[in-house]
Amino acid sequence: MTVHTGRHFLQIPGPTNVPDRVLRAMDMPTLDHRGPEFAELGFNVLAGSQRIFKTKQPVIIYPASGTGAWEAAIVNTLSPGDRVLMAETGQFAALWRNMAEKFKLDIELVPGDWRHGADLVQIEARLQADKAHAIKAVMVVHNETSTGCVTYPQEVRQAMDRASHPALLMVDTVSGIGSLEYEHDAWGIDVTVAGSQKGLMLPPGLGFNVISDKALAASKANSAFRSYWDWQEVINANKLGSWPYTPATNVLYGLKEAIAMLEEEGLDNVFARHKRHAAAARAATKAWGLETVCQDAHNHSPALTAVMMPEGHDADAFRKIVLENFDMSLGTGLAKWKGKIFRIGHIGHFNDLMLMGTLAGVEMGLDLAKVPHRAGGVLAAMEVLKGRDIVQMPKAAVA
Amino acid sequence: MTVHTGRHFLQIPGPTNVPDRVLRAMDMPTLDHRGPEFAELGFNVLAGSQRIFKTKQPVIIYPASGTGAWEAAIVNTLSPGDRVLMAETGQFAALWRNMAEKFKLDIELVPGDWRHGADLVQIEARLQADKAHAIKAVMVVHNETSTGCVTYPQEVRQAMDRASHPALLMVDTVSGIGSLEYEHDAWGIDVTVAGSQKGLMLPPGLGFNVISDKALAASKANSAFRSYWDWQEVINANKLGSWPYTPATNVLYGLKEAIAMLEEEGLDNVFARHKRHAAAARAATKAWGLETVCQDAHNHSPALTAVMMPEGHDADAFRKIVLENFDMSLGTGLAKWKGKIFRIGHIGHFNDLMLMGTLAGVEMGLDLAKVPHRAGGVLAAMEVLKGRDIVQMPKAAVA
Amino acid sequence: MTVHTGRHFLQIPGPTNVPDRVLRAMDMPTLDHRGPEFAELGFNVLAGSQRIFKTKQPVIIYPASGTGAWEAAIVNTLSPGDRVLMAETGQFAALWRNMAEKFKLDIELVPGDWRHGADLVQIEARLQADKAHAIKAVMVVHNETSTGCVTYPQEVRQAMDRASHPALLMVDTVSGIGSLEYEHDAWGIDVTVAGSQKGLMLPPGLGFNVISDKALAASKANSAFRSYWDWQEVINANKLGSWPYTPATNVLYGLKEAIAMLEEEGLDNVFARHKRHAAAARAATKAWGLETVCQDAHNHSPALTAVMMPEGHDADAFRKIVLENFDMSLGTGLAKWKGKIFRIGHIGHFNDLMLMGTLAGVEMGLDLAKVPHRAGGVLAAMEVLKGRDIVQMPKAAVA
Amino acid sequence: MTVHTGRHFLQIPGPTNVPDRVLRAMDMPTLDHRGPEFAELGFNVLAGSQRIFKTKQPVIIYPASGTGAWEAAIVNTLSPGDRVLMAETGQFAALWRNMAEKFKLDIELVPGDWRHGADLVQIEARLQADKAHAIKAVMVVHNETSTGCVTYPQEVRQAMDRASHPALLMVDTVSGIGSLEYEHDAWGIDVTVAGSQKGLMLPPGLGFNVISDKALAASKANSAFRSYWDWQEVINANKLGSWPYTPATNVLYGLKEAIAMLEEEGLDNVFARHKRHAAAARAATKAWGLETVCQDAHNHSPALTAVMMPEGHDADAFRKIVLENFDMSLGTGLAKWKGKIFRIGHIGHFNDLMLMGTLAGVEMGLDLAKVPHRAGGVLAAMEVLKGRDIVQMPKAAVA
Repeated sequence: MTVHTGRHFLQIPGPTNVPDRVLRAMDMPTLDHRGPEFAELGFNVLAGSQRIFKTKQPVIIYPASGTGAWEAAIVNTLSPGDRVLMAETGQFAALWRNMAEKFKLDIELVPGDWRHGADLVQIEARLQADKAHAIKAVMVVHNETSTGCVTYPQEVRQAMDRASHPALLMVDTVSGIGSLEYEHDAWGIDVTVAGSQKGLMLPPGLGFNVISDKALAASKANSAFRSYWDWQEVINANKLGSWPYTPATNVLYGLKEAIAMLEEEGLDNVFARHKRHAAAARAATKAWGLETVCQDAHNHSPALTAVMMPEGHDADAFRKIVLENFDMSLGTGLAKWKGKIFRIGHIGHFNDLMLMGTLAGVEMGLDLAKVPHRAGGVLAAMEVLKGRDIVQMPKAAVA
Repeated sequence: MTVHTGRHFLQIPGPTNVPDRVLRAMDMPTLDHRGPEFAELGFNVLAGSQRIFKTKQPVIIYPASGTGAWEAAIVNTLSPGDRVLMAETGQFAALWRNMAEKFKLDIELVPGDWRHGADLVQIEARLQADKAHAIKAVMVVHNETSTGCVTYPQEVRQAMDRASHPALLMVDTVSGIGSLEYEHDAWGIDVTVAGSQKGLMLPPGLGFNVISDKALAASKANSAFRSYWDWQEVINANKLGSWPYTPATNVLYGLKEAIAMLEEEGLDNVFARHKRHAAAARAATKAWGLETVCQDAHNHSPALTAVMMPEGHDADAFRKIVLENFDMSLGTGLAKWKGKIFRIGHIGHFNDLMLMGTLAGVEMGLDLAKVPHRAGGVLAAMEVLKGRDIVQMPKAAVA
Repeated sequence: MTVHTGRHFLQIPGPTNVPDRVLRAMDMPTLDHRGPEFAELGFNVLAGSQRIFKTKQPVIIYPASGTGAWEAAIVNTLSPGDRVLMAETGQFAALWRNMAEKFKLDIELVPGDWRHGADLVQIEARLQADKAHAIKAVMVVHNETSTGCVTYPQEVRQAMDRASHPALLMVDTVSGIGSLEYEHDAWGIDVTVAGSQKGLMLPPGLGFNVISDKALAASKANSAFRSYWDWQEVINANKLGSWPYTPATNVLYGLKEAIAMLEEEGLDNVFARHKRHAAAARAATKAWGLETVCQDAHNHSPALTAVMMPEGHDADAFRKIVLENFDMSLGTGLAKWKGKIFRIGHIGHFNDLMLMGTLAGVEMGLDLAKVPHRAGGVLAAMEVLKGRDIVQMPKAAVA
Repeated sequence: MTVHTGRHFLQIPGPTNVPDRVLRAMDMPTLDHRGPEFAELGFNVLAGSQRIFKTKQPVIIYPASGTGAWEAAIVNTLSPGDRVLMAETGQFAALWRNMAEKFKLDIELVPGDWRHGADLVQIEARLQADKAHAIKAVMVVHNETSTGCVTYPQEVRQAMDRASHPALLMVDTVSGIGSLEYEHDAWGIDVTVAGSQKGLMLPPGLGFNVISDKALAASKANSAFRSYWDWQEVINANKLGSWPYTPATNVLYGLKEAIAMLEEEGLDNVFARHKRHAAAARAATKAWGLETVCQDAHNHSPALTAVMMPEGHDADAFRKIVLENFDMSLGTGLAKWKGKIFRIGHIGHFNDLMLMGTLAGVEMGLDLAKVPHRAGGVLAAMEVLKGRDIVQMPKAAVA
């Protein structure tokens, strides 16, 4: 058995640190999911979710992981053979593509090196070239959790609009929502895909889709097989504050509390806080003489910082040293980044001193693992945090 | 806001009363699902689940409801056009059939009146007639939560064996597992479908499949589209104690504790307890002069008792009176039974005095709702509970 | 280890069933008891306690049991040799007397048979006779938890007023507050003694004193040694929302929530609920052909029902049978009632069906223990609960 | 309402960070404190407490704060007019002395400057001079929470033995037990005083006395008034695993879990961990160019580090800045140190990264408050933590 002599530092980029208030809200007897008390809860979390996703459209909440919500986006709107445009921004983009392949979509891939946001120039070019409008959907990952690079959905929307292309815009914001700005309606998103266990500060167990009228119309016209993920049945049941099958009641209790917490702090404050922490983490990385994975200042994620390991050093050996010596879990490098990078999550229920503990753990770990670096990352981070300045804060080119 | 002046009686046939120990086990910070401490948990719950389902085969645990586990059973083993034999035992059988239709299976239905277990004679006859072995799967519901009738899977297996039919045997035991005997391996089940929120005493959020070698082989040969539900990816990841995508970590904490509780009590004691409670509930029903929905003594469910409302009385009006006067949720009549029956759940974490509170609430509710009945159901139930006899205990015809 | 297959029935007359909301409120990290967030809590619970005790006077909250609050009442106001008038109403009165003896008070005892409230005629007579006003305090127990008899403090106050006697009126309402009417100011109480673990629906851990101006003046003039229990230091610290030494922070979290629950239900509804339950418990007792300990209809407790065991039967053997067969804890007979009575607690977070489970457990236990009785107590109780009438409701002679 | 955007840093020297496991263990329905399941708990925590205090003697557990345990030590063994020798080591020594005065003890004070442990030379001299053995007790504080200086009880015992003085040795280890070595029996302690909310990792609510045979004999001979605190009644009840009045059941649940955690880690490891953290905190303090309050390297506390504020700067203004900017509570200066020092608690459930977050918060706070200091305290602390060396580890002169 693992003996924890203090609080474990869970600094992977999700699942994140669930607030005590949320865990305690979940720690309650379950309810009759067909009764009036449940309906009150159902209406509450549906309305609250709309405020968080900034939408008047239906928010579909599945008892599932975010991966399930990916599948829901696909099977509701697309049929085998449909062409989709996907951008290779990292491992989560790659996994979504794998899933699309399993459903026999015809994937047009905009390549990427896993160190930038999606290539918007290429996306626009492909759309411009698609005069026949064969492309049914453009699918991008908002916050690439495998690299720490952001693709701004509103910039993708602009590219699509410039090309006057009618494809659906589908956005995975599993690790974006609740950590950085997101506006389903204003940005013209057709299908939003999200999960509970990141910026929403919940345990894993809920997947989300938010859908535009256009996406809903597409789903009605779509004959692809589906049942569990079928939007229409959920929308119908939601009108009564219920779900077509047993919902994950206790995580919904938590969702109610998490939304309350986000709104008590204020969403804008939540986003500013994440940006400050990311700026501090990047300042530390720079001071250590290390490189972030993300190479474009415009696209740095406020939710996590992925760091390149110096050549000849194994990131997972380093992570193991950090875990064993300092009881901190850092994110591993995924797929092509396996062993080559580590990731520092600073998503969700998090504050300055938790970040400083985190960065001190990284700095001490680098030393114990004999990874070449300069000392003083923690000091650099403190300069950012003390300054109360928002330095190096990336921002979308369009609002 | 609902003011509860004492503990709510959640006597629907699931979700059930979650033990404090289980809720508290879930009320813990989440973990790195790719780290060593999680792997320890993963191996623990996988091995424990095998003991509960009495199997050496893989147990697949999804972050999903039981409905998702139905879908998993279908998409892994069957393709559009495949013929399946389903038995109409009640609303859950009907919902599973609806799902099968959405995946374009060719359904051969053994009709039923929703007051009995599956018609085994008919099932055997159909299988005997199917000399070409067009039927790929026989799909039955173990414990029909909408009616309180049991279909014993081992009896279905015998019918299949007598017909020497090679179809897969798929069993929904969502509300059976943990409440009545279930033996995946010994009974020759090919795909078991289950959920967390009934006899396993957990909140909703986990769906289960248990799969035989034959089912696994069928899935490998099956080209139907699937991704989230794909068994093979889960099996591969489970070898390392992990999952291919973020699992519902906190419900897994609860699963570990729930299995510990079931084993501390002893599964046989758990089953005997459910049978005693069911016998007491039926004794009360009989004393009230009411009829159980289930008409065959051999098939009474140990997990719930569904009761016919006298002609001219609305079961939901009665349920509302019970809820408002006695803070107890009873199960509603589903589909064709809407307004005609009510259901008393006595599944999971439950004891004699909780049952007596429940039956007293029903008896007082019958009176307040002016439903014709005789008094004394509670006395009849007490006779059963005191006697410590197991009376009227239904049992499968084969072991 | 004890295996609980459902929820334990904790039907002793305290500690009582703590609501989940209260337990969860307590399940939070502790706070700096000298910081601003704590002060907010401190002011909240002090003001809330005043509303519960119906007073504008100081409420002193100790990290202690109710026994500690007894001691506080004594050492603050009385000195060795001081004469006090105490009424022998049962074991808690006797224990308070024992304590008074340890502090060398000169005790004048009004005898009693442990089956009635305090003898008010005698009390008045003693006070009338005490022309020299040697008696410094009259000390009574509001709700005698050992017998289920109430002594109404307002009736004692009337007796004192009729005798124009200046003694302090000290009332132990440990098991009364939150279960039956209590008005510190309106009834002219000088020192109220209470605890957290009964009608306040909290775990044990807080003791309360509420003090009149007269009591405070007495304490200032009193030279008896004291430190931990000294009122003045607590009053001084409370002005800043803090305490002179580390308070039981987490139980204070619970107190805040418990007060919120009492006020959501409405104190009058809380009291009416307790009376209904007591009436139902007495109806059951009568139907069984058993006698309540309390022999005066005017003095029956709404919080518990103590039942005489038929001659020749051991109440504790019966209680053991109930515990082992039905996982219910009933209250034991204390001191002279050891083995001769059992007590049914129906205090605090409690509802009709919990009561019915409780009474069914008693009725079945009587049968298993072969205690002579008639069946049908549960039916009689149901008549009361259904009727929604408040029958046999005792009430103080003065308001 | 305070909005916490991450976990509050509770770095006062108690109450401390309660582990989730302990809070969850407490978050359980209460029990019949006169029943068999409670007795099992009672025996468990009594035996466990003996292992923690390293004693075969009775451990008395009160529902009270540590202040109550002080009072218990006094009223059980001493009578008005008895002479006691107390050492002025800081505010907690001063408060205990105030209490002794209230009970009219005749106090002989060994003066101190609140920057050292007790003056052992003086203590020995006083004892040597007391040929008549008028001194009935020597009373010292093990870990002075107001200054961060340790007085080693075994050194006091040696001084007493050298003087062949028969006085009782009474030790307040409220903030010592569970954080640094403590051996009630081996060190010849007569009365140990402790509390739950420091190294025992519990919320406040339990006070402890551990008593030698000699102390017990003294108490039997002592006629001072007492009731709540009377040892003998508790000892008698404890023989049956119970208490003479309602114990703080839920905190006892927590005590069981806390003892399990201390023993899983191993007490020696617990102590070594506290020493490492203290060494790191002192290294940071030195690097900042600040002084610790404790001036003797031999006496530095492993449980907290108290830091002198530079002349002209208000420690509480600094603490306020830290609280408002970094959501961290630091300990205030008490009594003569008000505004002049701040205290960093590193007691209990604590690890390296929590310490680094803490020290970073102090360093940033010093900057924001414009307190003259050098940067780099955090780096110095990291050197200690990385080195895994135990540097500057104070140790008692005798074992």
